[in-house]
Amino acid sequence: MKKELKKQQAAPSCDWQTPAARKRTANSSRICRFDDFRWSGVKKERYKPEPGSWHSIARQVLVGNRGESPLFHLRYFEIAPQGFSSYERHEHEHVVICVRGRGEVKIGKRRHAVEGLDMIYIAPNTPHQFLNTEAEPFGFFCIVNAERDRPTLIAGRTQNKKLPG
Amino acid sequence: MKKELKKQQAAPSCDWQTPAARKRTANSSRICRFDDFRWSGVKKERYKPEPGSWHSIARQVLVGNRGESPLFHLRYFEIAPQGFSSYERHEHEHVVICVRGRGEVKIGKRRHAVEGLDMIYIAPNTPHQFLNTEAEPFGFFCIVNAERDRPTLIAGRTQNKKLPG
Repeated sequence: MKKELKKQQAAPSCDWQTPAARKRTANSSRICRFDDFRWSGVKKERYKPEPGSWHSIARQVLVGNRGESPLFHLRYFEIAPQGFSSYERHEHEHVVICVRGRGEVKIGKRRHAVEGLDMIYIAPNTPHQFLNTEAEPFGFFCIVNAERDRPTLIAGRTQNKKLPG
Repeated sequence: MKKELKKQQAAPSCDWQTPAARKRTANSSRICRFDDFRWSGVKKERYKPEPGSWHSIARQVLVGNRGESPLFHLRYFEIAPQGFSSYERHEHEHVVICVRGRGEVKIGKRRHAVEGLDMIYIAPNTPHQFLNTEAEPFGFFCIVNAERDRPTLIAGRTQNKKLPG
């Protein structure tokens, strides 16, 4: 069981860290203190290394790049006003918890307004996108399997206008 | 891959739902709306079926009992004033995000005060307990592997007095 966990951890598909970097810290208990949407010991990174399909997003990996053993990773994403994530689909699921501001999630072709502590479950292979149409930052936790497939981008222009009503 | 996911999901170790009950709802995308620390479509349940080792806790399973496919479950636990979870250890990890009030986490023999959006990672086989020494509810998300071992209770009297300072 242990061996299998380690094997799965060593082959992540969409993190920035190399397997070597992810092993720098031991698999030990810790508390990451929250302060103004930053967590102690957690760095702020780009959403994705390749530009083009997204705009104005930062990521923080709270669990997943220090050699932790769970079968899932916990990240916090923050989208600045007018920003948006890639419109994409993948086999792995997303579990999202909104914690800062308001935003929109596009699931399939439909957009939904979401806000504080709403939980969004994105099932496998469902096209989805997160957008910020407000004037304040939109931040959310996103939990994914540690081992996961690469996203496939979906063509189409991003309509980042606020939903009516 | 799909087959393995389904097999893992069908053998949870510490949820209340039977495998049959967990398959009632399809693995489809959804939004659970938040309102006063309840989520739409999510029922409030007992923390554990067996009393004795814990006090005044409720659980809500946001992801994990509707036939969803991720390798992890998302639950929300709320501890009423003077309540506490079992002092226990297990092979599976806990990832906890505090979202309501303040509380304490005992990791090993040491207690730490925690509050809003602090993140706590409990590594495998680490004795731990959550306690509410305040006058308001203490609530937190807890993410765990979908397939996990049963906890082992640790003997000892629960000292639910507030930390000095």
